[in-house]
Amino acid sequence: MQENTMVFEETIVKLLETKKYSTIRDIMAAMNAADIASLFEDVEEEKLPLLFRLLPKELAAETFVEMDSDLQELLIKSFSDSELKEVFDELYVDDAADIVEEMPANVVKRILQQSDPETRRMINEILKYPEDSAGSIMTTEYVSLRPEMTAEEAIKRIRRTGIDKETIYTCYVTEEDRRLIGYVSIRTLLISDDEERVRDIMDDNVISVTTTDDQEDVSILFGKYNFVALPVVDKEGRLVGIVTVDDAIDVMQEEVTEDIEKMAAIIPSEKPYLKMSVPDIWKVRMPWLLLLMISATFTGMIITGFENALQAQVVLTAFIPMLMDTGGNSGSQASVSVIRSLALREVEFADYFTVLWKEIRVSAFCGATLAVVNFGKILLIDRMLLGNTEVTISVAAVICITLFLTVVCAKIVGCSLPMLAAKLNFDPAVMASPFITTIVDAISLLIYFQIAKTLLNF
Amino acid sequence: MQENTMVFEETIVKLLETKKYSTIRDIMAAMNAADIASLFEDVEEEKLPLLFRLLPKELAAETFVEMDSDLQELLIKSFSDSELKEVFDELYVDDAADIVEEMPANVVKRILQQSDPETRRMINEILKYPEDSAGSIMTTEYVSLRPEMTAEEAIKRIRRTGIDKETIYTCYVTEEDRRLIGYVSIRTLLISDDEERVRDIMDDNVISVTTTDDQEDVSILFGKYNFVALPVVDKEGRLVGIVTVDDAIDVMQEEVTEDIEKMAAIIPSEKPYLKMSVPDIWKVRMPWLLLLMISATFTGMIITGFENALQAQVVLTAFIPMLMDTGGNSGSQASVSVIRSLALREVEFADYFTVLWKEIRVSAFCGATLAVVNFGKILLIDRMLLGNTEVTISVAAVICITLFLTVVCAKIVGCSLPMLAAKLNFDPAVMASPFITTIVDAISLLIYFQIAKTLLNF
Repeated sequence: MQENTMVFEETIVKLLETKKYSTIRDIMAAMNAADIASLFEDVEEEKLPLLFRLLPKELAAETFVEMDSDLQELLIKSFSDSELKEVFDELYVDDAADIVEEMPANVVKRILQQSDPETRRMINEILKYPEDSAGSIMTTEYVSLRPEMTAEEAIKRIRRTGIDKETIYTCYVTEEDRRLIGYVSIRTLLISDDEERVRDIMDDNVISVTTTDDQEDVSILFGKYNFVALPVVDKEGRLVGIVTVDDAIDVMQEEVTEDIEKMAAIIPSEKPYLKMSVPDIWKVRMPWLLLLMISATFTGMIITGFENALQAQVVLTAFIPMLMDTGGNSGSQASVSVIRSLALREVEFADYFTVLWKEIRVSAFCGATLAVVNFGKILLIDRMLLGNTEVTISVAAVICITLFLTVVCAKIVGCSLPMLAAKLNFDPAVMASPFITTIVDAISLLIYFQIAKTLLNF
Repeated sequence: MQENTMVFEETIVKLLETKKYSTIRDIMAAMNAADIASLFEDVEEEKLPLLFRLLPKELAAETFVEMDSDLQELLIKSFSDSELKEVFDELYVDDAADIVEEMPANVVKRILQQSDPETRRMINEILKYPEDSAGSIMTTEYVSLRPEMTAEEAIKRIRRTGIDKETIYTCYVTEEDRRLIGYVSIRTLLISDDEERVRDIMDDNVISVTTTDDQEDVSILFGKYNFVALPVVDKEGRLVGIVTVDDAIDVMQEEVTEDIEKMAAIIPSEKPYLKMSVPDIWKVRMPWLLLLMISATFTGMIITGFENALQAQVVLTAFIPMLMDTGGNSGSQASVSVIRSLALREVEFADYFTVLWKEIRVSAFCGATLAVVNFGKILLIDRMLLGNTEVTISVAAVICITLFLTVVCAKIVGCSLPMLAAKLNFDPAVMASPFITTIVDAISLLIYFQIAKTLLNF
């Protein structure tokens, strides 16, 4: 599939050079909106308005939604007022709202001027909800039915109005005051007798979200309950919109990327990696690097404090990297397990002591295994094979006891910090490897030198 | 919602103690399958068969699918043959195949004995595809139409057969030899005139996957094209099944969890964190910890090699943790950015030089910023504030030049290894922080001591 798309793209670029516009039109008409949008990213900017005008109306609108906001802005600027109106009339209102949100003020003004009053009202409705809320990703175009309708009337209504709705697969049943009382799938309607009432075939155990719910929570519900759409109600329980599964998938992917970026000490950005300029990347990577670098001052101070000891036993220095890395890895295993479970809503703060007790036992087993293996390794490889006579049995003991304690501390810190962050309504993802590593470094060095002082008598 | 569910659960456990079974039946009938399944995990095992028998037939089957395989096995063992048949007759065949896959051989035999021959054939069909392939997650229950049918005939067919199909929202159009030639949504059918031919209203630009395609690639297509279902064809282009969006979402979440675990040096497992026993967790965490610990022998050897230099300038030791951590963080930023872009299919191996050139420039800027800030920090904080007179301007220069070169090397290694892994068909996710850190540690120490030797003359 990937390859087919690439062949398509090359063909079209060639046809464009030779001005074979009608051929291009036919090819694009058979393509998918997402593929056309990625094709548009590869052609020269001045050819773009020309290419876009070759698309049939509906496909043009679908393609427009799939493009990134820079190209959208470029196109809008090239549109006449009537072209702009034509494209926006074809859009679903949640997509229109998404686009409006990304545009500069003067473009927004032009778009809203060209929309009919009803669309304008709906766009403004969606825009008033906070970013990342259910309200901001919902669409206000859904099929609503009344409980007293018959199945036949309901299907007629869908056939008449369904073309403008984002989904007709699930229809929502509301009272006259717009209060949501149930839902019915088109499948149920189709297999019911014509004269059955919606009231009798609908499912009144309807799961809904409110406009201010977090979009990540909403997307998790899709994974849990296998919906194709989820109704959004206001505080009074009145239906105001629906979230469709395609938007939920987008949210899921966005949130995962955001979590992964935070776990790697990167400030999340909405742009894909290849679209980011060098200064863009610099901006999202520098702050954490700087902060973590400066907080390493503490580990430096710890080492300086034990300088005399190190001068007497330089061999201890050779194991600092191993101790720090093993501590960091152990801690990040625990923190990442907890962060992911929190994100999937499998774990919550109430489970803290269960998690802690589990990590203490796991860390004891892991620490013991590592310590035993390492003791053997030090004596066999470092002392016998590499002939490093400074590595005495006491030194090996110091290293292995430190290793054990470091692993235990690392896993305790690693599982605790994300849980604490969740409790305090911070994003637990920040409490991943880099952050944990910095803390565990300091802890492991303190343990190391303390034990060395005790066992090696200096 | 979460809280409502918890109240439900507590109520039911209480009702169970007082044997108010009819009340429990009414409550559960109004609940959602996923919620009932999570309720079942909290009740005593011996009460489970009793509770399960209180569920209405269809809901019982839906709940059964949502339960984890231990509980499923427990229930199957308590079922009579006719109960077993009743539950499995209600299941979609892809769900039945998933369950069969997790069961021990004797249970599988019993299930297949109780299924009718057609279901047995379909289950075996799905089970023959490799794990993680499109074939293994597809269902063979879909609506297929013929091109010569009218819209009215098509809708009649859906009303007649739709009840057994996993989705009726998209119908697939096939020739007599089962070759897939197009698709049509139920929406299109409903808004078309009764006598229009399927051939004329179907979309013949149909995107399909083959049975052996990777399930992760399939799930990415759902994100890209906003489908609710995707047809699966065999090598001859004949339709054999469909993948529905709910299964695609499950795959997406599984694959992300797997990637995140690999990035944190954990061997992926399918069990949720809280369900894993302490030995389970030990097993998935130990191998990488051990491997990484032992590979730290190299960093130890490097330090031992420069022992004399360190004895002369112990101050250099104090900056080893900062240099190693900053290198590790810089490298993991680059590797994680690349790994995520590869997973979302935004980047492929062909982009390697674009990525490399980007990372070289980013690392130069990041390295320079960090070096300059660090130079100031060392002189102001370490030398003046903390009064560490060993930190001379030459020492600060050695540290900052090393820092710059380490960041550049770290980002080059960080972006290159995942790309290389992708090229060699390994999972790029393994090339994340822990692995990169170990390599970058060695590089940064070599640079450090080489520059120290040159600038500080020892």
